[in-house]
Amino acid sequence: MILYMKQIDGWITAPQGFVAAGIKAGIKKSGNHDVGIIASTVPAAAGAVFTQNVMASPAVLFSRGVAQKDYARAIVFNAGCANACTGEQGMADARRMAALTEELMDIEKNEVYVCSTGVIGHLLPMDKVEKGIRDAHAALSVSGGEAATLAIQTTDTFVKKSAYEVMLGGKKAIIAGIAKGAGMIHPNMATMFSFITTDAAVQPAFLKRLVKNVADKSFNMVVVDGDTSTNDSMIVLANGLAGNPVIDSEQHPDYAAFYEAFLAVSQDLAKLIARDGEGATKFLTVEITGAVDDGAAKSVAMAIAKSPLVKTAFFGKDPNWGRIVCAAGYSGACFSPDKVSVALNGLLIFKDGMGTAPDAKRLQAVMEEHDITISVDLGAAGGAATVWTSDFSYDYVKINADYHT
Amino acid sequence: MILYMKQIDGWITAPQGFVAAGIKAGIKKSGNHDVGIIASTVPAAAGAVFTQNVMASPAVLFSRGVAQKDYARAIVFNAGCANACTGEQGMADARRMAALTEELMDIEKNEVYVCSTGVIGHLLPMDKVEKGIRDAHAALSVSGGEAATLAIQTTDTFVKKSAYEVMLGGKKAIIAGIAKGAGMIHPNMATMFSFITTDAAVQPAFLKRLVKNVADKSFNMVVVDGDTSTNDSMIVLANGLAGNPVIDSEQHPDYAAFYEAFLAVSQDLAKLIARDGEGATKFLTVEITGAVDDGAAKSVAMAIAKSPLVKTAFFGKDPNWGRIVCAAGYSGACFSPDKVSVALNGLLIFKDGMGTAPDAKRLQAVMEEHDITISVDLGAAGGAATVWTSDFSYDYVKINADYHT
Repeated sequence: MILYMKQIDGWITAPQGFVAAGIKAGIKKSGNHDVGIIASTVPAAAGAVFTQNVMASPAVLFSRGVAQKDYARAIVFNAGCANACTGEQGMADARRMAALTEELMDIEKNEVYVCSTGVIGHLLPMDKVEKGIRDAHAALSVSGGEAATLAIQTTDTFVKKSAYEVMLGGKKAIIAGIAKGAGMIHPNMATMFSFITTDAAVQPAFLKRLVKNVADKSFNMVVVDGDTSTNDSMIVLANGLAGNPVIDSEQHPDYAAFYEAFLAVSQDLAKLIARDGEGATKFLTVEITGAVDDGAAKSVAMAIAKSPLVKTAFFGKDPNWGRIVCAAGYSGACFSPDKVSVALNGLLIFKDGMGTAPDAKRLQAVMEEHDITISVDLGAAGGAATVWTSDFSYDYVKINADYHT
Repeated sequence: MILYMKQIDGWITAPQGFVAAGIKAGIKKSGNHDVGIIASTVPAAAGAVFTQNVMASPAVLFSRGVAQKDYARAIVFNAGCANACTGEQGMADARRMAALTEELMDIEKNEVYVCSTGVIGHLLPMDKVEKGIRDAHAALSVSGGEAATLAIQTTDTFVKKSAYEVMLGGKKAIIAGIAKGAGMIHPNMATMFSFITTDAAVQPAFLKRLVKNVADKSFNMVVVDGDTSTNDSMIVLANGLAGNPVIDSEQHPDYAAFYEAFLAVSQDLAKLIARDGEGATKFLTVEITGAVDDGAAKSVAMAIAKSPLVKTAFFGKDPNWGRIVCAAGYSGACFSPDKVSVALNGLLIFKDGMGTAPDAKRLQAVMEEHDITISVDLGAAGGAATVWTSDFSYDYVKINADYHT
């Protein structure tokens, strides 16, 4: 089956009926954009997944409540202060961000998601936040996508967006997403925001299921440092303005096309997050095959992607398969050492439990590449998994040693 | 009960009947000591624990067999080449190291443990190793403890030893240990060797049980980078020459005294390994109390000790409790955020789920300290655990990016 799907250059306002804004409210010391709103002009089916961290921020606790409802209208957010570990006042502030947005937009209660990112342990400067929300509301427009994207960034070094056009039941629909995140990146959501909008019509309960499924194949397969933050949120709004027949199950004729586009946006964003890993000099794709099952493959991929020894070796341009197979060995997955093979960008460096003698020039050329795929075949069965990560450089240490509270 | 136990300045040859040697055999590029033997003049009860890594080196696979026997006579070892991922030849080489030692010492089969550490994936230069073993055997003496200790080091920056004198049934006994390890350090054995000798008389089966128990409270509570190596080995030899009544159970009158001394040696060595963490500028003790049980406490302690964000924060002298409680939050342990408190060297920085406002001068003074204890009370129940680790510095990255295969 060939599905009509085309990557396009657009922000989260590319799907019909979405507006956005980003404002410089003075929360970030840098003076950059730090408060924003993304809104749908009509109620949108909504789905979301959040951090599993016990210390989840009030914004996450509040938004989990919003996620109980089928429909939502907007996401209000700020960067520069995570509103985490802020007790009762933090929860009141998260509620206030939503209430003010609802009031300005003149919409129902509990239809606005709230997201905060930045330093943990400080109360939000609510005067600045409130003024920011008012200004952002006044600025909402179809051309506000870029400013909104800037307003979710913290240590990000570039904006992260992706959009696809797809045909659903003869109607053209668009799905678009933006993301932030560069450190504290780990499965089950990192300091990671991903906001995805679409004008496709999707049944709310089915959308909620899909979001979890897609997160597991995209954002939950990215590792920068293994730290799962207190604030991670992936939120999807589907307002149905494309006019396609409502997608409500895996059996729906347009399901496959929508799913592929949704997954493509999410995986694009996930890879951009790994690519922007704090201090990264390499983008690493860890591809495991031949595991006893997909779960074992994921364990091996994660062990390799999280290993500081593997990550520093790639920073040092050293094809150190010893550290790669060592990480596989302690992952908890079962396999026979003498059936393992490892390749870097297709060049075999380890086979049947021992190092090969690859052409030194070709190997050096691979290690000079910015994008390297580490392929490990465990030779056991058909389990597979792919994880994206970055290397560990002096700058990772510098960024995180200098980022003072 | 007050037990007579005294720390003494001695090498692994301090207990009666032990000899050792370390030789420069030319395996290390640096030309330093790299082959050695530790031997007991009489058969010694022996216990050991090894890496859980699936890719365990032939030396470990061979030594696991030796560990099946009640008694052993010696440990033969080399540094500079881990003999890991070396297939059939690697196994033949490990066997040869033991056989040659047995031949030279004129002892029974399977009474010699074999340990190798260094780069993964290279065959041992057996001509150098064999000559080294012959020279080491010829040099065995009670004054060879220091040279033997040098011959197990790789990236270590100082020698690691500990020894205690203890009275057992009216007889003076000594327990002494040496260790190596600075990177690839993680529970269930790191690139970590610990060789412990004692002239105490301990029943072999009981000693094997004790070794596991003590490892769980010492070496398995150290983290440098979270990487569990292919070669970790802890080996204990107890030759009984002290003449004390044989300790054979927890009910034995001398059990408590022996156990305390054994644990003290092992914890001393474990802490020295964390203190020598590659590139370390801080020695961190992570002390968890108030968890639902000891297992949950260990999960929280490990999550904090392994977090690159926590480790870089301490390198940057930043009292970033946000990263500490965040790591506790994703550890998988259950607790109420609003009951958590955190102190650094006794100075409270987080209480009841929120940051405190500690005296800035006192806090700065704490962050300047080399040794910092991070105490986290979860306020749930009585579970406790202590883990030792180090910070992450530019030098950690440098050492591991430059250490080429």
